[in-house]
Amino acid sequence: MRLILVAGTTRTARIDGISAAGADPTLRVHTPSVDAELLAYGAPVPVPGGPDERPVPVSPTGCPTPAAVARAARERAGFDLTVLDAGLAAPTAAPTVDLDAAPGRDIRESVAVPDAGDIERRARAYGRALPDGEVVVGETVPGGTTTALGVLRALGRDLPVSSSLPTNPLARKRRAVETGLDASDLAPGGAADDPVGALEAVGDPVLAAVLGLIRGATASGTRVVLGGGTQLLAAAALARAAGVERSLDLATTRYLAADVPLREAAATLDLDPVVTDPALERAGAPLDRYAAGEAKEGAGMGGALALAARADVVDELPAATRDVLDRLGEPGGGNPGGAETGGGEADDGP
Amino acid sequence: MRLILVAGTTRTARIDGISAAGADPTLRVHTPSVDAELLAYGAPVPVPGGPDERPVPVSPTGCPTPAAVARAARERAGFDLTVLDAGLAAPTAAPTVDLDAAPGRDIRESVAVPDAGDIERRARAYGRALPDGEVVVGETVPGGTTTALGVLRALGRDLPVSSSLPTNPLARKRRAVETGLDASDLAPGGAADDPVGALEAVGDPVLAAVLGLIRGATASGTRVVLGGGTQLLAAAALARAAGVERSLDLATTRYLAADVPLREAAATLDLDPVVTDPALERAGAPLDRYAAGEAKEGAGMGGALALAARADVVDELPAATRDVLDRLGEPGGGNPGGAETGGGEADDGP
Repeated sequence: MRLILVAGTTRTARIDGISAAGADPTLRVHTPSVDAELLAYGAPVPVPGGPDERPVPVSPTGCPTPAAVARAARERAGFDLTVLDAGLAAPTAAPTVDLDAAPGRDIRESVAVPDAGDIERRARAYGRALPDGEVVVGETVPGGTTTALGVLRALGRDLPVSSSLPTNPLARKRRAVETGLDASDLAPGGAADDPVGALEAVGDPVLAAVLGLIRGATASGTRVVLGGGTQLLAAAALARAAGVERSLDLATTRYLAADVPLREAAATLDLDPVVTDPALERAGAPLDRYAAGEAKEGAGMGGALALAARADVVDELPAATRDVLDRLGEPGGGNPGGAETGGGEADDGP
Repeated sequence: MRLILVAGTTRTARIDGISAAGADPTLRVHTPSVDAELLAYGAPVPVPGGPDERPVPVSPTGCPTPAAVARAARERAGFDLTVLDAGLAAPTAAPTVDLDAAPGRDIRESVAVPDAGDIERRARAYGRALPDGEVVVGETVPGGTTTALGVLRALGRDLPVSSSLPTNPLARKRRAVETGLDASDLAPGGAADDPVGALEAVGDPVLAAVLGLIRGATASGTRVVLGGGTQLLAAAALARAAGVERSLDLATTRYLAADVPLREAAATLDLDPVVTDPALERAGAPLDRYAAGEAKEGAGMGGALALAARADVVDELPAATRDVLDRLGEPGGGNPGGAETGGGEADDGP
C-alpha cells in the first residue's frame, strides 16, 4: 500500500493568527518539507545549502506534528511513501515527485494559484499512470484549512472546517475568504461548476494536486482513500464538482471526528468515513495533547492510521510514536540529554 | 532498511558497442529513469510531457533489467527505497532526491564530469545527514562499467570489470578509457590520490554521488553496504583513495561473482563480500538468461538480494520476479495477451 503525501505551501499561512503550523512565518515555511522528511526518514534531514538544524514541527503549546504519528504507523505497518512536491517553498531532503508547482499566493489577492490548471493536469496524469490498485492521499500545507474554507465557499458547499488550534480562529478564516472572493470577483457558490476556477481564486497548490490525483487515479480504476480532515473534504468537494462519481474513502482520526460533524459531511460528499483512534492519551506528554483536541490531523495521519488498522498494529502506536519522538530528542520525548525546542506544527490542520 | 538507488547517465553510453543498456541510444537514455520507476512502483509510470509508453528495459536478447529482480526482492522483503537523481537525462516519475547533477559527458572528452566535486559534496552532506544505522547503495547508469574502468585506471587500480553483455567488449572499453586519459592529460595511476580528479576526467556523475554517499554516511556512523558489482568496486576504490577506512560490505549476485574474481578484488579494497544466488534458472524464460551469464547485476540487485536473504525470502524470488514480469506483460512473462517488446537493458552492468 502507498501513502501519497502532497506537500506544499501557501502565503495564506502568513495571515496573522490563522495558522499554528509553525511558531513564526519563517519556521512555517519549513513545516511541510520537514513533515516529508519525518515520514521518509523518521527525522529531519539537513538539506545542502539549507539550515543545519530545523526543529521538528510542534504547535506553540508543544504538540508534535501529526507526521510523527504517521511515521510511527509507517514503521509498524510498513507501507510505501511517495511525496509530491506541490509548491514547497523550502528545500526538502525527502525524495519527491516534482509537479513543478509554485507556492500558493495569499488568497486575499485576486489570484491565489495561477498555475492551478497545470498542477491539476500534471497530478491527474500522474494519478492515472499509477499501477496501484489503491492509494491513500494525505496533505501537509500550513494555512490549508483556510484555503479549504475558501474552496468550499467558492463551490457553494457549507461544510465544517476544523483547526489544529485548540480554539478555531474561524472568524479570521472567514474574513480572509470573503476578502479573497471579493478580490477574485467571485460570489459564494460562483465556482460551483468550476473547481479549477475555485482553486485559482481562493485555493492552494496542494488542493489542486489532490484534485488531479483523485481524478486521474479513479479514472484508471485505482481506489482512493483520502487520509485527512478538512482539506480532504474540500478535495472531495472539488472532485465531485469535477464529475468524479466513484466512491471514495475518507480516513481520519478520532480527534478530527470529535471536532466536526464528520459523518454528515462525508454523507454529503458520498464518502465512506473510516475513523481510527490511536489512543495517544496513553503515550503521555506531549502526545496526550492530541486527546485534548490539539493538532487533530495532517500529514496523512488519518490515512496512516487506517493502514495501521488494516495491519492490526494500532495498539502499538502510542509506544511507537513515543519511540519516534525519543529518537528525535523532542521535549517530553524522554531524551532529556538531547532535548531541543521545536517551533512549528505539522499542519494548519485537519 | 533503506536501498539508495543512485541513478544517472553518461554520454559514454553512446559509444558504439559499449553498452547493452538499451537497444539504441534513445532508449538507453530512459533506462535509469525506468529502472527507478520499476523499483518505486513495480512498473514504468508515464511522465507528463514524456512518451506515453516506455518499454521495460531488456537486453538485446530479451533478458529483463535487474531492476525487476530488485523490485521482486523489495516486494517480498519490504525494504525502503530512496532514489538519488545524479544526472538523469530523461524525466522519471519516481520520487527522487535531486543532487542537481548534469548528465556525464563522454569520457573521451577532456572533462567527463565538470561538476564532480559539487555532486560529491552534496551527496556527502546527504549521506552524513541520514539517520539510518545502515544503508544499501546501488546504481543504474548505462555505460557505467566503462566509466568504472576509467576511474580504476586513473586511480591505478588493476581490478576486474564485468559486463552486462554475454561477451565483454573489454577492448572497446579500454580504448575509450585510454582516449579519455589522454584527452585529460592523465597517466594511468595519475589520480591515485585525487578521487574527484579521477571522476572529473574519466568518471560519471553516479560514481561521484556514490563516493559522496560513502564518505558522508560512514563519517556519521552509518554502515554502508555497496549493492552491485564493477561500479561499486570502483566506488569503493574511490572511497579508499579519499581516506575512508571504515569496513564496507559488497553485496552482489552469484552471476557477477561467476564472471570476475570477486573475492580477490574485495580483499584488495578491504570489502566484506556477500554473494546471493536468486536461482533465476528456476524462473523459466526469459529470466533464465541470468543463469546463462547475461545482465548479472545492476539497479541495486545484489543489495536487494542481500536484504531478501536477511528477510529469509530468497527462495520466493524466482516466482516473485516472474510475478513482476507477468504484471508488466513482458515477453516470456506469461501474459501473451499483453506482450510488448522491450528495448533497453537496465545497466551496462555489474
